[in-house]
Formats: sequence, structure tokens, C-alpha cells
Amino acid sequence: MRDPSETRFRVRYAETDQMGVVYYANYLVWMEIGRVELCKSLGFNYRDMERDDGIYLAVADVACRYRAPARFDDEITVKTWLEDANKRLVVFAYEIHCGDRVLATGSTRHVFVSRQLERTRLPDKYYPLFGISPEKLVTP
Amino acid sequence: MRDPSETRFRVRYAETDQMGVVYYANYLVWMEIGRVELCKSLGFNYRDMERDDGIYLAVADVACRYRAPARFDDEITVKTWLEDANKRLVVFAYEIHCGDRVLATGSTRHVFVSRQLERTRLPDKYYPLFGISPEKLVTP
Amino acid sequence: MRDPSETRFRVRYAETDQMGVVYYANYLVWMEIGRVELCKSLGFNYRDMERDDGIYLAVADVACRYRAPARFDDEITVKTWLEDANKRLVVFAYEIHCGDRVLATGSTRHVFVSRQLERTRLPDKYYPLFGISPEKLVTP
Amino acid sequence: MRDPSETRFRVRYAETDQMGVVYYANYLVWMEIGRVELCKSLGFNYRDMERDDGIYLAVADVACRYRAPARFDDEITVKTWLEDANKRLVVFAYEIHCGDRVLATGSTRHVFVSRQLERTRLPDKYYPLFGISPEKLVTP
Repeated sequence: MRDPSETRFRVRYAETDQMGVVYYANYLVWMEIGRVELCKSLGFNYRDMERDDGIYLAVADVACRYRAPARFDDEITVKTWLEDANKRLVVFAYEIHCGDRVLATGSTRHVFVSRQLERTRLPDKYYPLFGISPEKLVTP
Repeated sequence: MRDPSETRFRVRYAETDQMGVVYYANYLVWMEIGRVELCKSLGFNYRDMERDDGIYLAVADVACRYRAPARFDDEITVKTWLEDANKRLVVFAYEIHCGDRVLATGSTRHVFVSRQLERTRLPDKYYPLFGISPEKLVTP
Repeated sequence: MRDPSETRFRVRYAETDQMGVVYYANYLVWMEIGRVELCKSLGFNYRDMERDDGIYLAVADVACRYRAPARFDDEITVKTWLEDANKRLVVFAYEIHCGDRVLATGSTRHVFVSRQLERTRLPDKYYPLFGISPEKLVTP
Repeated sequence: MRDPSETRFRVRYAETDQMGVVYYANYLVWMEIGRVELCKSLGFNYRDMERDDGIYLAVADVACRYRAPARFDDEITVKTWLEDANKRLVVFAYEIHCGDRVLATGSTRHVFVSRQLERTRLPDKYYPLFGISPEKLVTP
């Protein structure tokens, strides 16, 4: 695991539900904030990858384990790291904290797709950023 | 005012907040449901207008008055009607009900824009659907 | 597996993102709609269980696999069924469809908690509704 | 007008819609972030006011004018100030910026309510924080 990126923000009132805690789907929004930040720490903007290269990260899978509730105005820290990557897909992992407490852990698997949402390969220039080894030439 | 369209749905848990009632921004989502339904009752799909004609409704203004709270699992009725329309803009008005009670009233003003979000004119074929009179020929 | 409940609704504009498809966190909202509907088909209202018995379903885990994108105004069907239940926890499973296509599959695991979010047991009266066998008397 | 408070954050992917810009209801969420921050700058936490004093701010009205679209990853600044306040209600005003551009302006009117959502008076200790003059003694 490479060093995780960290991003911080406060729980919004809109994110709570009538149970008095954060609604569970919002953790997936927080994971998205984490991976956008991780991209920046890896050396590129996700926004530019979409706009300039027409490469999108379509979510294929998500898993999240909820350990403790988050409450309005809590300061949340999302730690995000690359769990796996190749030219077809990438796996991000997340730990969501409030101070010392781990609130949730999770992961998302994404495939690279074009603007038309068809599967595509990651352009070569992103290989080092995602820590992907260049493909070996197969010679006889 | 033409006859309003009506659409019905139940309050989602996700829409509540820790006050135990629906979070105020969700009423704007409900207005959107209302105007999509109104378009259908007027004879076209908003989806097709975007996709086939490249015409989008950009919101210019919204106002909402909240009269009574909505709660999880309440059955909501949104009544929507055209308040005004011309080739440049359209105004929708809304009444949001739960049974006999009016929960909220509001309106949105929209301008027609292109895919690039530049102001544009509504294509002629939509005039009768929006109740817009054909433009008079200017003759000497 | 008991017979799944089915619930239908249309994709809201608010649920799309700039990729032109439904944002991934919204599938968890749709799962919630599915399990509220399942509760009704099992013979009780989730709202009443919270209000009258002070029993809440805290999400412990979620997993979702995304197979095909959902688009604005698509008619979505959520099939929901009980995968497992005992006096401490319940597992729901979901299939999300658009017409014949499966868009996503997933599951959520929940623990029963009190209003103060402390773990609790499901009251006996809900046992038959969740298909839980009454506890055996332990006799010497 | 007192000095506005300012708060900054980046646009989340979740906040965009298929038009490629931020969905209009999210500006109301941003207003909420602004007023939570304003409360802090006035000397109290909205969270504590709810929890310790049982005073809630129920939204009675909102108006928003949209001037320019916000896009994913834009850095947003929300300026918030008290427009009016008395023991029964408070009006907040907002300007939402991206760099030099004003994206939106708006206001919200709130009434003070109890946990049971009944209208109530603001406790005296909050008068100076909201800039409310103490009530004059009526003497013969």
C-alpha cells in the first residue's frame, strides 16, 4: 500500500437522517471525495482525465462496513489508497475516521470507460501515476 | 392556469434529516419530478427534448414556501402547472401536498439553453405544447 | 428465499451525474426503498417499528455490484428479499432492474438497535414476520 | 449587514447532474453549510443549540437566483450574513462564488421551533449573538 491521501470535512446537516446520524449512502459520496483527493496526490486531476482524455472511472463494485455512526458537524477524515491497478481497472480502499475512531472501511473497484461508457484501456501516460508497470514485450 | 399535472410518491428515508422531517432541499427535487411529469402530460418527454433537440432547461430562479413538514413514508402529491412561457423562458408553479394538507408551494423560472449552456430559443414545434402563440409575421 | 417484493419508480434527474448516468450512491437509496416495501409486504411498516417499538435497523455492511448504467427517466424495478434474519440482525438482498436488464445486485446487513443506537433484540412479535423461529427452550 | 462569514469547499462529483453542472437543489445544501459556519463566527454551534437548548431552525422560505453554473471540482465560497433576526425568526442571506464570479445569491427565512416542531421563542442568551435588542420593559 502506498501512502494514503487524507482529506477532511465536516458532516453536513443534509447528510443526516431521522435516526440522528449520517445516512449510509453518504459514505459513498465521501469515498468519492477521498479518491478525487488521492488522484491529486498521485499527480493528476480526475476532472482533467475526464475532460482532456475522455477517460472515466465507472464503478463496478462497492463494499462498505459501518462501525460507528457519524453525526452532524463531526470532522471526518477520509484516508484513501490504491489497492490495485492495471490498464483495465483500479481498486481504491478507504478508511473513514472521526478523530481516533474508525467509522467505516470500504473499497471500490472501477473499470476505465470512454465517454460512451465503453470499456477502454488507461492511456500509457497514467501508468506511472497509478503505479502500473509498463507491459512487457513478449518476444520469442 | 392550465390543468395541473399530478404525481405521487412516498417520502424516502434518505430524504429525512435529524430534525425528523424532510430536509428542505429535497422539495426542489420533488419540483423536478413534478415538471418532468407535467412535460409528459403536455405531450413530450423532457428526456427527449434534451437528447433529440439539445434543448435544456437551466434553472434561473427558485422560490419555495414551507408550510408543514413532510415525514418518512408520507404519500406526497406534487401538482405542477405552467405559469408562463415564451420562446426564451418558462415558469413552473408547484403545490406539494400530503393528503389534504399543503406542505409547500413554489415556483421555478428556467431559460432554454443549448448543450453548451448558451441561451437559445425554444424550437417552434414546442410552441403549442408550452401554449406559446406563434410569432406574428411583421408585415409592412 | 421467500418471494421478493417489487417496487417501481423512475430515475430522477437529481440522481444523475455528469457521466450522464445514475450516481453510484443512489443505488443504496433505491435499496432502502426496496426494503421499506419488503417490510410492508411482510406485514408491517418500518415507520411504525421505529415509532411504536423504538427498533431501528442500523446498517452494518453493504455490498453492491454495478452491471449496467441507469439513465434519467428509466423505469427501475427493485426486487428485495430476506436473505437471513435472527433476533440480532437481518440481511436483505436486492436486484435492481430496468426492464429485462439487471442493473445491479447487492445486499445489506443490519443490526437491531434502540433509539439510542445500542444493540438490542428484535421483539418477539416480529419473529414470524421476519421468518425467525421462536427460540427453543433449553431443558436439561 | 454584519460582516459575512466565508466558507470554502470543492464541488463533489455527486453534486453534478447530466447537464454537466451542479444540480440546483445542492445550492440549498451549500446555504446550510454557510449558515452553520456563520453561527460559529457569531459565537455558538448550531449543533449545541439543537442539543442543549432544544431550539431548531425550521425553514419557512427559500429563494435562490442562479447566475452561472458550478462545475465538478470548482472551489466554492459561500458568504453568509444575518439579514434580519428577532425572537421569533431569522433571515440569512447568501452569495455563492467561484473565484471572482458570483454563481448564485439567495436567502432563507427560519422560525425557531422546539424539538416537537412547535413555534417557540429564542432563549435570551442568544439575543446578543443574533444582534437582537433586549425587549424593552413596558412601564406605565
